[in-house]
Amino acid sequence: MLTYDFKKRVRYGETDKMGYLYYGQYPLLYEIGRAETMRHVGFTYQKMEDEYKVMMPVVEVEARYLKPAKYDDELIIRSIMEELPTRMVQFKHEIYNHEMSLLHKASVKLFFIDMETFTRTNCPEDLQNLLRPWF
Amino acid sequence: MLTYDFKKRVRYGETDKMGYLYYGQYPLLYEIGRAETMRHVGFTYQKMEDEYKVMMPVVEVEARYLKPAKYDDELIIRSIMEELPTRMVQFKHEIYNHEMSLLHKASVKLFFIDMETFTRTNCPEDLQNLLRPWF
Amino acid sequence: MLTYDFKKRVRYGETDKMGYLYYGQYPLLYEIGRAETMRHVGFTYQKMEDEYKVMMPVVEVEARYLKPAKYDDELIIRSIMEELPTRMVQFKHEIYNHEMSLLHKASVKLFFIDMETFTRTNCPEDLQNLLRPWF
Amino acid sequence: MLTYDFKKRVRYGETDKMGYLYYGQYPLLYEIGRAETMRHVGFTYQKMEDEYKVMMPVVEVEARYLKPAKYDDELIIRSIMEELPTRMVQFKHEIYNHEMSLLHKASVKLFFIDMETFTRTNCPEDLQNLLRPWF
Repeated sequence: MLTYDFKKRVRYGETDKMGYLYYGQYPLLYEIGRAETMRHVGFTYQKMEDEYKVMMPVVEVEARYLKPAKYDDELIIRSIMEELPTRMVQFKHEIYNHEMSLLHKASVKLFFIDMETFTRTNCPEDLQNLLRPWF
Repeated sequence: MLTYDFKKRVRYGETDKMGYLYYGQYPLLYEIGRAETMRHVGFTYQKMEDEYKVMMPVVEVEARYLKPAKYDDELIIRSIMEELPTRMVQFKHEIYNHEMSLLHKASVKLFFIDMETFTRTNCPEDLQNLLRPWF
Repeated sequence: MLTYDFKKRVRYGETDKMGYLYYGQYPLLYEIGRAETMRHVGFTYQKMEDEYKVMMPVVEVEARYLKPAKYDDELIIRSIMEELPTRMVQFKHEIYNHEMSLLHKASVKLFFIDMETFTRTNCPEDLQNLLRPWF
Repeated sequence: MLTYDFKKRVRYGETDKMGYLYYGQYPLLYEIGRAETMRHVGFTYQKMEDEYKVMMPVVEVEARYLKPAKYDDELIIRSIMEELPTRMVQFKHEIYNHEMSLLHKASVKLFFIDMETFTRTNCPEDLQNLLRPWF
């Protein structure tokens, strides 16, 4: 299992009239979490698109909003990969505030799409090899 | 059951590098759908906060991304309320493109929170009365 | 001179902790204004990219924030084109609330870029011809 | 004169169909720049609102877009304060990519507004005192 924490501060433009992080901003947090998890193992999503010609559209999101996130709080985006990605990849995310109180939980599924044929493909082997030590 | 359709065009700033509507923009579509559904029955979310001192934080989202939404497409946000809201409210949303091809499905649960005590409360009776004819 | 008004409601996700439309949301309003002005004369920005292979990056923005825009207010985005576009195009925008109180003024300059050579080009003649009656 | 650099990576959700950072995302960069500049001198915008009951709405933005910012690039947001803030504050911002190529320049003016009377006020003395060593 691979777990990676990355910090992200809540900005004014990301809050709403309620005074908290807008509920529609959380998918950006998941994106940051998975991009930084890939970077952590030595890969980047940019490379996936530019060199491997594979893109990763999200196909499913399940999210639970437990407590609000406040302006200027430095959130911890925990990203968890429980299985080595093959035909698809699943990330679980837990969002904590700076006191490590759990604010939000989500599960996100993504496919691998060949950018030339627009059909489903496998996770690039090079990424699988970089991930293997955790599984 | 209450069903309401509202149109929303995909803007450039809402697309991403993949060329499609960014997956994190969908929660804004749900927000538009539920706000316009409330307006359709004669209520507004603004009134909920300003007059009834009740806010409606989202507590759960489940979303399936079926097909991408394209720049400048005039999407149809279908909002479906299957049960009269009491302690919480659930909206189902279906997003169609202008050819009525189903792109996206979601289910969103919201609580009613008393803005003075910050505790859970019921759906305001006035809104329930406006909604009752559909149930 | 060409002037065109288009309505856009302020959404919850576009407000910030101050309770008003976030100042960084205004460029999206300008985008909506210019896209709908082009559609009004019989052209679309989508066609510009897809058929004419020309894109229009913004090169300059000057904006004055006069009064805040409130949640759920139906804003009027007034777009003004004072000169027929040639090597570049300039839009002036005035944002009004539903009581026609002026909230915001902006001026936006855009270039025409050939998407194959990535060099500057002229406004497509077909768009100029559609615009000519106003000048 | 006070100058402060802060890094911010371009996220997928912040790009648009053109493949670059959407032009409407730059105001968020200015916000990040000024918030982090204040934090750098020992103050926070959160404290300004919560303890001093002063908010800082933006009243003017002038921006020049020189070169596009790319996905995943780690931008440098340079914030420059040329004068000690009194009745208003002006920030100049320069955005560089990781190769220190200048992509964008902007000038942003903000007022200080008393959150109880909604009238203009001065920059809090405590912030002025923290800033004085640079001027």
